[in-house]
Amino acid sequence: MVKLYEDERLDYLFNEELRIIQSPSVFSFSLDAVLLAHFAYMPIQKGQIVDLCTGNGVIPLLLSRRTKGTIIGIEIQERLCDMARRSVQYNGLEGQIEIIHGDIKEAPQRIGYSRYDVVTCNPPYFPAVGKDELSKNEHIAIARHEIYCTLEDVIRVSSQLLKQGGKAAFVHRPGRLLDLVTLMRQYRLEPKRLRFVYPKAGKEANMILIEGTKDASPDLKVLPPLVVYDENNEYTEETKRILYGIISS
Amino acid sequence: MVKLYEDERLDYLFNEELRIIQSPSVFSFSLDAVLLAHFAYMPIQKGQIVDLCTGNGVIPLLLSRRTKGTIIGIEIQERLCDMARRSVQYNGLEGQIEIIHGDIKEAPQRIGYSRYDVVTCNPPYFPAVGKDELSKNEHIAIARHEIYCTLEDVIRVSSQLLKQGGKAAFVHRPGRLLDLVTLMRQYRLEPKRLRFVYPKAGKEANMILIEGTKDASPDLKVLPPLVVYDENNEYTEETKRILYGIISS
Repeated sequence: MVKLYEDERLDYLFNEELRIIQSPSVFSFSLDAVLLAHFAYMPIQKGQIVDLCTGNGVIPLLLSRRTKGTIIGIEIQERLCDMARRSVQYNGLEGQIEIIHGDIKEAPQRIGYSRYDVVTCNPPYFPAVGKDELSKNEHIAIARHEIYCTLEDVIRVSSQLLKQGGKAAFVHRPGRLLDLVTLMRQYRLEPKRLRFVYPKAGKEANMILIEGTKDASPDLKVLPPLVVYDENNEYTEETKRILYGIISS
Repeated sequence: MVKLYEDERLDYLFNEELRIIQSPSVFSFSLDAVLLAHFAYMPIQKGQIVDLCTGNGVIPLLLSRRTKGTIIGIEIQERLCDMARRSVQYNGLEGQIEIIHGDIKEAPQRIGYSRYDVVTCNPPYFPAVGKDELSKNEHIAIARHEIYCTLEDVIRVSSQLLKQGGKAAFVHRPGRLLDLVTLMRQYRLEPKRLRFVYPKAGKEANMILIEGTKDASPDLKVLPPLVVYDENNEYTEETKRILYGIISS
């Protein structure tokens, strides 16, 4: 048993195989994280994986079902680290997942340069805002806004952690696509796979999934579009296959 | 009446409103050009438009149905210029469309810097190849390969021709997306609209449509995907709406 604080819930992941501690007032994982955990390349039998800005550890938990490799999650907010660690413990995954409390910018010094196979990150999407905005809910503000790390920090650190040929996978908003690809090339993460997520058919994309390979040659593939909802506002078949492989509620 | 050379055909465009001279052995327009002519922003009442690498003039002919502005088509191959001019004449569009024989790299000196509202281009997609390949069919090789102009030439010249706030629209292959956006930013054409074209649902994209605005602020929109064929290998409804607004055969 793990301790649950007031306002925390123990939600299901992966059709009841896994559970995760969440809190509406502190942090709940998003569809974005689930799609990234599904999109990222994973070595099956072994490998070393790092998830930056791991939040309540949803991505490491999901990835544990796709790989036997070891997974490190790094999170700057102690409260979220604590949630993530208790979820890891609840699921008996202490042997595979390690949650580190710290600043991602110090990660290469702490866990080593050029040795990881995969880095994933669902980073803060929005620019830093004034203190007023931040004070409303510090935990959520830090997860959403570039307060402790910018997109450039995320991409630079990912590249530092990866070995040659290692892969970095990110999820972000379409408005940042050009910054993403420019920074990825600048830090030697050649973009190789790109997928756009559309909320409904006929709507503009509201999410991008992108994967780059360290020191690879240029050759970008644009994967089939993923449409999340159908005309009746229900999940499309493909979204269901992704989610119900992963979540039951 | 216009003269038709051996092996030339007079095909229909826009449900018999327009006709275009084509030749399977010299040049026939592609779906790519039709989709670009549909995708590009067009001022309705007036404006000055340039189509680079205009081939047999398909894009100027199609655009003449979307704008009352004037349209210049530039083509380096005299044989194709001649086809384009005869098509313009056949359709009685000499007052709206001018076809210029020349190298796009000299276009700004010839027709003026910073004065155009829209530039379109369906450029050669493939790197230059050896003489052997080229000699098989020179006309088609020049249209398809970067023999007389590179992607950078196209983007630099587009930027030189456009006034501030003017728009450049291109069609290309997804593998060149990163080169496109990098060069567009380098030459002050901020990418604003991006659309991916997929041959069928579930397949990777095989075409991109992109539009940039000269000296605009960054804010990229990723438009809904366009899927060309349905599961029975027939055009999808959206493709039909685009094509049968434009072509009948």
